[in-house]
Amino acid sequence: MSSSKLYGYAGRILWVNLTTKSYKVMDTPIDLVKRFVGARGFGAKILWDYVKSGVDPLSPDNLLIFSIGPLAGTGAHSASKFFAVFKSPLTYTYFRSVGGGNFGAEMKFAGYDAIVVEGRAEKPTYLWIHDDVVEFRDAAHVWGALATHATEILLKETDRDAKLVVIGPAGERLVRFASIQTGETRSAGRGGGGAIMGSKNLKAIVVRGTKKPELFNEEEFEKLVEQQLDLYHKNPGFHSFRALGTAGSVYLFYTLGHFPTYNFKQLELENVDIFRPEVLAKYVVKTDSCYNCAMQCWHYFKTSKGPYAGIIWDKPEYETLWSFGGNLGITNLEAIMYANMLCDIYGLDTISTGSVIAFAYELYEKGILTKKELDGLDLRWGDPEPALELIRKIALREGIGNILAEGVKKAAEIIGRGAEKFAMHGKSLELPAYDPRSGKAHGLNLATSNIGASHMYGWVYYEFPGALEKVDPFAVEGKGAICKKVQDEFAAYEAVGFCLFPRSMLPLDLVSKMLYTATGIEEFKNPQYLLLVGERIVNLERAFNVREGFSRNDDTLPERFLREPVPRQPSKGQVFELDKLLDDYYTARGWDIKTGIPTRKKLEELELKDVVDELEKLGRLPR
Amino acid sequence: MSSSKLYGYAGRILWVNLTTKSYKVMDTPIDLVKRFVGARGFGAKILWDYVKSGVDPLSPDNLLIFSIGPLAGTGAHSASKFFAVFKSPLTYTYFRSVGGGNFGAEMKFAGYDAIVVEGRAEKPTYLWIHDDVVEFRDAAHVWGALATHATEILLKETDRDAKLVVIGPAGERLVRFASIQTGETRSAGRGGGGAIMGSKNLKAIVVRGTKKPELFNEEEFEKLVEQQLDLYHKNPGFHSFRALGTAGSVYLFYTLGHFPTYNFKQLELENVDIFRPEVLAKYVVKTDSCYNCAMQCWHYFKTSKGPYAGIIWDKPEYETLWSFGGNLGITNLEAIMYANMLCDIYGLDTISTGSVIAFAYELYEKGILTKKELDGLDLRWGDPEPALELIRKIALREGIGNILAEGVKKAAEIIGRGAEKFAMHGKSLELPAYDPRSGKAHGLNLATSNIGASHMYGWVYYEFPGALEKVDPFAVEGKGAICKKVQDEFAAYEAVGFCLFPRSMLPLDLVSKMLYTATGIEEFKNPQYLLLVGERIVNLERAFNVREGFSRNDDTLPERFLREPVPRQPSKGQVFELDKLLDDYYTARGWDIKTGIPTRKKLEELELKDVVDELEKLGRLPR
Repeated sequence: MSSSKLYGYAGRILWVNLTTKSYKVMDTPIDLVKRFVGARGFGAKILWDYVKSGVDPLSPDNLLIFSIGPLAGTGAHSASKFFAVFKSPLTYTYFRSVGGGNFGAEMKFAGYDAIVVEGRAEKPTYLWIHDDVVEFRDAAHVWGALATHATEILLKETDRDAKLVVIGPAGERLVRFASIQTGETRSAGRGGGGAIMGSKNLKAIVVRGTKKPELFNEEEFEKLVEQQLDLYHKNPGFHSFRALGTAGSVYLFYTLGHFPTYNFKQLELENVDIFRPEVLAKYVVKTDSCYNCAMQCWHYFKTSKGPYAGIIWDKPEYETLWSFGGNLGITNLEAIMYANMLCDIYGLDTISTGSVIAFAYELYEKGILTKKELDGLDLRWGDPEPALELIRKIALREGIGNILAEGVKKAAEIIGRGAEKFAMHGKSLELPAYDPRSGKAHGLNLATSNIGASHMYGWVYYEFPGALEKVDPFAVEGKGAICKKVQDEFAAYEAVGFCLFPRSMLPLDLVSKMLYTATGIEEFKNPQYLLLVGERIVNLERAFNVREGFSRNDDTLPERFLREPVPRQPSKGQVFELDKLLDDYYTARGWDIKTGIPTRKKLEELELKDVVDELEKLGRLPR
Repeated sequence: MSSSKLYGYAGRILWVNLTTKSYKVMDTPIDLVKRFVGARGFGAKILWDYVKSGVDPLSPDNLLIFSIGPLAGTGAHSASKFFAVFKSPLTYTYFRSVGGGNFGAEMKFAGYDAIVVEGRAEKPTYLWIHDDVVEFRDAAHVWGALATHATEILLKETDRDAKLVVIGPAGERLVRFASIQTGETRSAGRGGGGAIMGSKNLKAIVVRGTKKPELFNEEEFEKLVEQQLDLYHKNPGFHSFRALGTAGSVYLFYTLGHFPTYNFKQLELENVDIFRPEVLAKYVVKTDSCYNCAMQCWHYFKTSKGPYAGIIWDKPEYETLWSFGGNLGITNLEAIMYANMLCDIYGLDTISTGSVIAFAYELYEKGILTKKELDGLDLRWGDPEPALELIRKIALREGIGNILAEGVKKAAEIIGRGAEKFAMHGKSLELPAYDPRSGKAHGLNLATSNIGASHMYGWVYYEFPGALEKVDPFAVEGKGAICKKVQDEFAAYEAVGFCLFPRSMLPLDLVSKMLYTATGIEEFKNPQYLLLVGERIVNLERAFNVREGFSRNDDTLPERFLREPVPRQPSKGQVFELDKLLDDYYTARGWDIKTGIPTRKKLEELELKDVVDELEKLGRLPR
């Protein structure tokens, strides 16, 4: 179906086959836009349609989909995120990894809503896409290179103003949590997208576009953008994001019983004061933003003292200050910044990397891994040196790094000896910096998320300060519905291509107006329709996992949370009431309680009849 | 005196005072051009005129002069080097450090033949020079940053297409052999120009220019450029330079008794085969060049294995393959490449850094420095790890690095205990990768060079294969005249602003024609006049040193060369006959043999009467 000029919307999808070195370009079907909006929605739909059950994530049969939303590259702020969607080599689930910077907008300028990559190149390759021209270029010369060094070379030989996604040595070596880097300090970090690129012999996609996005009603759209900016500026969250981004919330979250320490043993962290915003703020030397975003939440930090002096790098986010900080007992900020930089240049997800290292630290503490097995490293809590060494070893799959490169779950299986007890993950995705026991709906999201334990799948803000309708984080009652609501809402924002950080400043009815004004699609006038699309996406993502064999048993969290009470205030004594919470959640979702699988009724209600038919045919529906 | 339009030449000199945050611009005096041509010539003349005897190199009274030649930024190939001239904090002599890349051409486009920096900024500052606009900008945010990270930030906040010179942490910490980096893998490495910038609180000079250089006779000039290219392409040296640059000659020079090993103990180097061109060539992934240079002698090397895998960086030159290779007994190529990169990002001269580290390795071997004094490092020949650690320590002046940061001569004085025997330098400049005993005229140049033991002050090609009139390298007879000839010739090429690498492909009469055609200055028609200018420059440089108190006693080399015979073939048994060679050289120069000081007769012959008058007034002339 071709897009009609009745609509302002007129994008295209580029479909690249690396095996045959061929590509096709199709108009974005308007029906696809109506049903899934774009970005995360497109990814979910294309992945469902084209990646059949049981495909090895690292095989040529997996797809790697880069998609953006209808507002990318327009005057809308915070609306140019790109989404990398694939079956994850870490979790074996559906996965969507989100990246910032300017790559998303540049895709739009080149005229593409999505770039779908299939197959596997015979030799290291990069794609050089400039407007309508798609070139398969030899990447032998940059294969093996750090993401930063490869970026330098590739921009030199294409166009200094081009934007790119690129992998480092970790992706090439199929580290299961290798990131997709953007060459601008941003990355689509989680889930192993870098390994997917590596498995496809794809070092980078370099894009340059010169087209101005078309809008259905440009004049009206500009007015809405002004409203958006006005709402931003009136919101205190906006100013705190501009001041220090996510890094500003470490100390607060620690006091709320999050920001776990020592691989989630969750003890007091001595010297936690160094994470106070006023201390961190001293490191800021410059701010910047993704394409057209008034939030300006990038903060370049500079290290000036100690052995790690000399770097200026985009700050470690909240999660990274945790994964290389509290979770390792490290309170040397310069070392954390250095670790963050190493992950970026080697192409590693900072959350999973820090977590798998914390796992190793705890195994060493418990005597499960010996110094010899750790290549002579003495993993003492709080000492950053071995952690930095492990980053490199993981990226290069050297010695113990070759095991840790598999992620905590697989690494624990390889190591045995009870190691799995210390593998902190949900569906194989290393946990983020929240304690499920200190926020039950939050924990419920981690347990039920279709991409594994990701806080960004449904960050249940109701449990955190600043929420308009705050709920008791320790309560269990009603958390299923709250969790569902936030997950659907997040999926809606991400289908539009919005960053989730300014979500609280950006009411859905404004999003809905912007979307209609940009595209001319009537359905988008209704904000409730967008929530329905969000729910549709979450259900389709769940259906993908169900087709892969996932069910309620996989919606779980480590034993530590289910059995061991939190040892410190304010959540002291809390555990995570998994079963009760899951029952509540499935009920709210209209899913089968016993299996956690969507019902025919729910899927048909969401106009996913073909999906439920296929699940039934495969015998995946509950009897 | 203002430049006249009778000449094509119409440059300007920018004089910046950091103390007063003021600047002035003057037309380049045509008389200065006639007498000193440009580039190194301008630097020598301005330094003589404005830096009085006894000035502390790191005080505001020292000048830092960036100068280029009349052909910079034109169609002439290899003609856009920039020269950093100053009194060196390492050698306390006159110094000229040469840098490549595009900074020199950009200076020309902005309209400046020279940028003279005096004084000291109150706070960290960078200069942002775009055409006629000169801004003094706050550099607090990049102070302390690696050269690469600072480059990224500064180009982002000025102009992506600007070019710059910048220092790393080493320059800020006044490491006496800190380099001036260009942000494009090139540097003016030797002599401590980085420390001069550091002492002036000057992090960088960023330049952007939009003017096209004027030429006296453009049509004729273009024909000469064609001749130049024709000569290049016909020359085998051109093709070998394009293939691997200076790195291609390691193995050859080792077989000639150069490429010293183990801090000049000059033993056999096991595994020297890894330095063969065919091995090195496998690392090349890309070539590039300085502004408009068909030589294309930049070779990006990629490391793909071992712990240093992942980097793509401009290759280690011959000197660096030595300073971090043979001279430390290291034959791990990846480690040498990594060391090269570290020096570039921290802003250190690779020759001096490797040398001061080799000095430490030998002191450890001889028991003069203990492991404890070395901060626990175990400096075993051939092990790169402690060398890499020492680079950082030197740059940050941490522990033992704080002593080594002074250079071998001062470090030996601080350490005492006979350490000076192992400090391999000439006039405090760490020696390059040649053995004075294996090429006597070459050694003579190292001993007499006015910037300390620099091979690039007069690389006596007569002693090396490929020379049209090759002489016996071990012979002593006639070496004074040969050394003088080459030193003067190099000064002439460098006054024009040419790179010395293509010198053998570029006859002086062509240089002379190009220079006349570009400038319209009659005197330049005569190639012999250029040689005279070369000799004038060398004499003026010597006069600067004489004014500082230097004399024959300083024209020397380490005892090791004068007493210990070379232990391996082909120069086995050779020593360096210093006194005899010096007598011969001073005679050829027309200088006083007893003191090595230029005579009144010689200086007047070179039209340097004012210079000799001043020396006489100061009582510096021999009685």
